[in-house]
Amino acid sequence: MNHIIFTSDAGEVLMDRLQGISPEDVFVLADHTTARNCLSLLGANGFKKQQVIIIEEGEQHKSLQSVELIWSVLKTNGARRNSVLVNVGGGLVTDIGGFAASCFKRGIRCINVPTTLLAQVDASVGGKTGINFGGLKNEIGTFSIPECVIIDNGFLKTLPYRQVLSGFAEMFKHALLSGRDEVNRMLSLDFTQVATPDFLQLIEESVAVKNRIVEADPRETGVRKALNFGHTVGHAIESVAIDRQIDLYHGDAVAYGMIVELYLSVKKYAFDTFLYEDIKNFICRIYPAYSSLVEPGKLHELMLHDKKNDREGVNFTLLRNPGEFVTDNYCNRDEILDALKELTS
Amino acid sequence: MNHIIFTSDAGEVLMDRLQGISPEDVFVLADHTTARNCLSLLGANGFKKQQVIIIEEGEQHKSLQSVELIWSVLKTNGARRNSVLVNVGGGLVTDIGGFAASCFKRGIRCINVPTTLLAQVDASVGGKTGINFGGLKNEIGTFSIPECVIIDNGFLKTLPYRQVLSGFAEMFKHALLSGRDEVNRMLSLDFTQVATPDFLQLIEESVAVKNRIVEADPRETGVRKALNFGHTVGHAIESVAIDRQIDLYHGDAVAYGMIVELYLSVKKYAFDTFLYEDIKNFICRIYPAYSSLVEPGKLHELMLHDKKNDREGVNFTLLRNPGEFVTDNYCNRDEILDALKELTS
Repeated sequence: MNHIIFTSDAGEVLMDRLQGISPEDVFVLADHTTARNCLSLLGANGFKKQQVIIIEEGEQHKSLQSVELIWSVLKTNGARRNSVLVNVGGGLVTDIGGFAASCFKRGIRCINVPTTLLAQVDASVGGKTGINFGGLKNEIGTFSIPECVIIDNGFLKTLPYRQVLSGFAEMFKHALLSGRDEVNRMLSLDFTQVATPDFLQLIEESVAVKNRIVEADPRETGVRKALNFGHTVGHAIESVAIDRQIDLYHGDAVAYGMIVELYLSVKKYAFDTFLYEDIKNFICRIYPAYSSLVEPGKLHELMLHDKKNDREGVNFTLLRNPGEFVTDNYCNRDEILDALKELTS
Repeated sequence: MNHIIFTSDAGEVLMDRLQGISPEDVFVLADHTTARNCLSLLGANGFKKQQVIIIEEGEQHKSLQSVELIWSVLKTNGARRNSVLVNVGGGLVTDIGGFAASCFKRGIRCINVPTTLLAQVDASVGGKTGINFGGLKNEIGTFSIPECVIIDNGFLKTLPYRQVLSGFAEMFKHALLSGRDEVNRMLSLDFTQVATPDFLQLIEESVAVKNRIVEADPRETGVRKALNFGHTVGHAIESVAIDRQIDLYHGDAVAYGMIVELYLSVKKYAFDTFLYEDIKNFICRIYPAYSSLVEPGKLHELMLHDKKNDREGVNFTLLRNPGEFVTDNYCNRDEILDALKELTS
């Protein structure tokens, strides 16, 4: 994890890193919100105007059009192989910017400065980049490790609570993949303290869980599937929400996905029922309710088309206990429909 | 080079390879000419219609639009991570198909079946993929090694002579990077024998030169720049031709580029003048003349924007002798304009 830096002064670390690698040009990618709220914290007001690239916010802009815009600005301003793209924003910015950088002149370096909790604990780490295509999430992308990732929880001060919750779902997932103590700590977390040094420590521990798994399996052929916990169902819920233009956050979908996949874990691996109920109640208490999104047949159909799945059927990572996961569990339609009932009961 | 197979029966080798890796789906990419002339030789008439993707020919179609078409067909037909894309055609097809495959679901496997001499000795080997963007050649792409490359010179029987010449320029370059004997053999080659076992042997030796260099430097940070010999000037000539819609072949541009860069080698490294004159006469005899493309100021401007160059100026690989190259030579404007005169004198 030595390319991931945890700090309370992202601006200083960024300038230091840029001096170290001395690129001929630096381009900064942001969306409108991060351009307004975050670039000044980074000291990035010193960048020339044409060096800042602003893309539109929202999942519908995680598109080839946004990537083309980035490539055009890079090209027009004479970016070279040795140039660096600094991605400042949530997972949308780091995913799009990472993809654009990995293909421009067959790959220029990028530095990720994730400014949301979700991006800090998840998107910015692990080398996945991507955009949506043909209505499918992250259908197009690359595996490409950034030059470095700078994580500063000072950015979380201005982050809306719902976005904190969205990132928290991934922290919860990492805790479930780690152990019982970590899960208990999550169940009693104080969300008003996200910008404190203690919380930065929690972020670092959460990233370490992901990083350990990613380093063991960078191309997602084996153990990395563990990180998919909650996501088989979560992605399907997200697709329904996009389709119906409902304002659901990624973490909301993952949180509900974890309920369903923990229920399958209870059924298949005797995961502790009491802990399952505690987690379910906790998630239902803190996350907004989306029971209208639970169309069981449609969700099952979407899961079958998930790129993580093959012709064998829908592939789940399940848990025996916190910290003990089993990848490659195929569940049939009846089992899945039964588990989905947990979201509406 | 064990992923590169030299054969006189590409169809059999392909079927054998596909059986070995047993993908869930096989998609075949071709252009109109290779779909007509080459797929039947491959036994690929057995593929279902929706599994064959046809793209338009011509450099102007080496575009994001062609890539989007491929992605759409893959998506619509339910391609999965374990699917394989077989690229059948010239460098345009293998470059575009390789790029499309490397980004679809963050990378599916591809098999290259190059059907032109140029693609056999150059484009299909070395892991570079790419498309043109914003008027610049191969501005967008990835480094991605195919599952395997199947080289069958039987395809060359139907290849027009001008396309044989285009590939021959890269063979000549490999000979120059290899040694004096190899250069002499090229100077006395019989182009009517391209489909013979002896010629397949020459192709194999030519590929071995490239492969040795690529394996020493897959990401083109050092010695791989040697393969750029002839291309700094060649790419600029090609850009002028595209701009003026003149029907110039890649190898034609490289052949003329080699004249200019050998002249710079004579000036900077005392490359043998007599051999230089022999090579220049040989190239001018067998390749079509394009003196109208030689706009020195414009060519120099284009070289400055080549992605291989940085702010230091225009970067050349030059030769002391056949087989002895020196990378990272910066030549100034006057030196370049002087050398370009060789193409019009």
